[in-house]
Amino acid sequence: MIKSYLKEKALLIDQNLDKITNEFQNVPATLLESMRYSLLAGGKRLRPILVLATIESLGKDDEIGLPFACAVEMIHTYSLIHDDLPAMDDDDFRRGRLTNHKVYGDAMAILAGDALLTEAFGLIVRGAKAANISQDCLIRILEDAVRSAGARGMVGGQVRDILSDGAKLNAEELEEIHRHKTGDLIAFSIRLGAHLGDASAPTLEALTQFAYYLGLAFQIQDDILDVVGDQEVIGKPVGSDAEKQKATYPAMIGLDQSRAKLQQLTQEAKAVISDLPDLNPQRLLQIADFLLTRDR
Amino acid sequence: MIKSYLKEKALLIDQNLDKITNEFQNVPATLLESMRYSLLAGGKRLRPILVLATIESLGKDDEIGLPFACAVEMIHTYSLIHDDLPAMDDDDFRRGRLTNHKVYGDAMAILAGDALLTEAFGLIVRGAKAANISQDCLIRILEDAVRSAGARGMVGGQVRDILSDGAKLNAEELEEIHRHKTGDLIAFSIRLGAHLGDASAPTLEALTQFAYYLGLAFQIQDDILDVVGDQEVIGKPVGSDAEKQKATYPAMIGLDQSRAKLQQLTQEAKAVISDLPDLNPQRLLQIADFLLTRDR
Repeated sequence: MIKSYLKEKALLIDQNLDKITNEFQNVPATLLESMRYSLLAGGKRLRPILVLATIESLGKDDEIGLPFACAVEMIHTYSLIHDDLPAMDDDDFRRGRLTNHKVYGDAMAILAGDALLTEAFGLIVRGAKAANISQDCLIRILEDAVRSAGARGMVGGQVRDILSDGAKLNAEELEEIHRHKTGDLIAFSIRLGAHLGDASAPTLEALTQFAYYLGLAFQIQDDILDVVGDQEVIGKPVGSDAEKQKATYPAMIGLDQSRAKLQQLTQEAKAVISDLPDLNPQRLLQIADFLLTRDR
Repeated sequence: MIKSYLKEKALLIDQNLDKITNEFQNVPATLLESMRYSLLAGGKRLRPILVLATIESLGKDDEIGLPFACAVEMIHTYSLIHDDLPAMDDDDFRRGRLTNHKVYGDAMAILAGDALLTEAFGLIVRGAKAANISQDCLIRILEDAVRSAGARGMVGGQVRDILSDGAKLNAEELEEIHRHKTGDLIAFSIRLGAHLGDASAPTLEALTQFAYYLGLAFQIQDDILDVVGDQEVIGKPVGSDAEKQKATYPAMIGLDQSRAKLQQLTQEAKAVISDLPDLNPQRLLQIADFLLTRDR
């Protein structure tokens, strides 16, 4: 049942991303093609789905979240394009196809990323107008977007990751990198849903905690899949972390302990949102459980 | 007199950029250093000054424009950092010092650019809160920012520029590149001032025309300076356009005709804003005249 929900919502996101970018006027054809190449490459659409699921959990119509959900996916995609560049992780495959710069060249990949980041803010504005949200709510969402995606958030996490390259990290340092590199954008997605769903302050806080537990669990699962996963299913080479001597949970504490930590974090995530007066947590709990078993 | 105005306002922008970025919390030190290295490298601060001058021309206190002006300068600086990368223009000097990637490496330069672009939207929000502007005004400013800086604007212009590399362009094609690569952000600066200064619709339209004339004149002057300028004054090597066989006005129509076109565009710019009921154009006219004579 959760599988069909995830499939249905991923399709909805895909359709909307396709429609929105098709409507872009006056964009050079190669740039638009490069943006759409990475944006429409499939992917789990976890972050945008979390936006929609959180709105639904708060008893609101998740349709108002669609432009915002697409904005999050644009930010996520821009970060992947830039992370894959030769100057950064130098990856050739992503989501089962060649990375953006392998097809369009480094310059176009940098610019496609820049454009996706910029246009994401345009989608937030579009969503705010369509849903007629208050100025306070728009400002809260924009502040969250900047904090989560910028120097204090995802970009800061990527910098920490690069600077720690080859260094021996302890668990705390590794967690700090993931908190920003992966966690902040997952937290933004869920907080977006909370803002749009008019969550109370304590529920917003609980959802934020849920998001960071979930984000860390998600990252550990990513690390585990890079050891034991199926390249065909994941869409990118397996074993690349070990090859690059990246700090990962399996490398640091072993596979068994990583799996135990993944279970524990998922339980903690579920616990913080299980008993809130204005939230029906079922969908989010199902997603948390599903992520435990994912193979890509 | 205009010289002392420009100097005073550039200093004000410098001080604000310094203060704002000093207050950034929880940003990795190297990232912040890299952002500040390019952001605080001096520069003419033309775009932010145009924000302030336009507000003043509409009879409002230009102080409300400061966070917005700093946002524009952050967008401009991010675009310079990315444009200078080896994958793009591969430039070693900018504003009299080594380019960002020459000091911090390509990865950090890409991420510093990403962060500056993201944080620019944070400054727009900060400015909106400080000046207590209406939601309509905030939305107009954000829509303008995205259109001017993104795929339909500056990034699109850079893509057109890259794709035309080595091609023989006619004047119309060259103008289209500059309209987006340089013009859109100058237009955004002036329109920002117009929105914040409550310009009437016809005045907003006239100021937009002024901005595009001015932007094209500015670009032609840039091209001329790359032929006849003083490297010490400009802060980057002279003759690099010719060396890279870039399409420029001097290369296309010669120096004399380029100078004539520069004069003509400046006159046209000044004419469209000279007689508007809600605008005192003096400051903007002075800036247009000053740009004619600039040597950097």
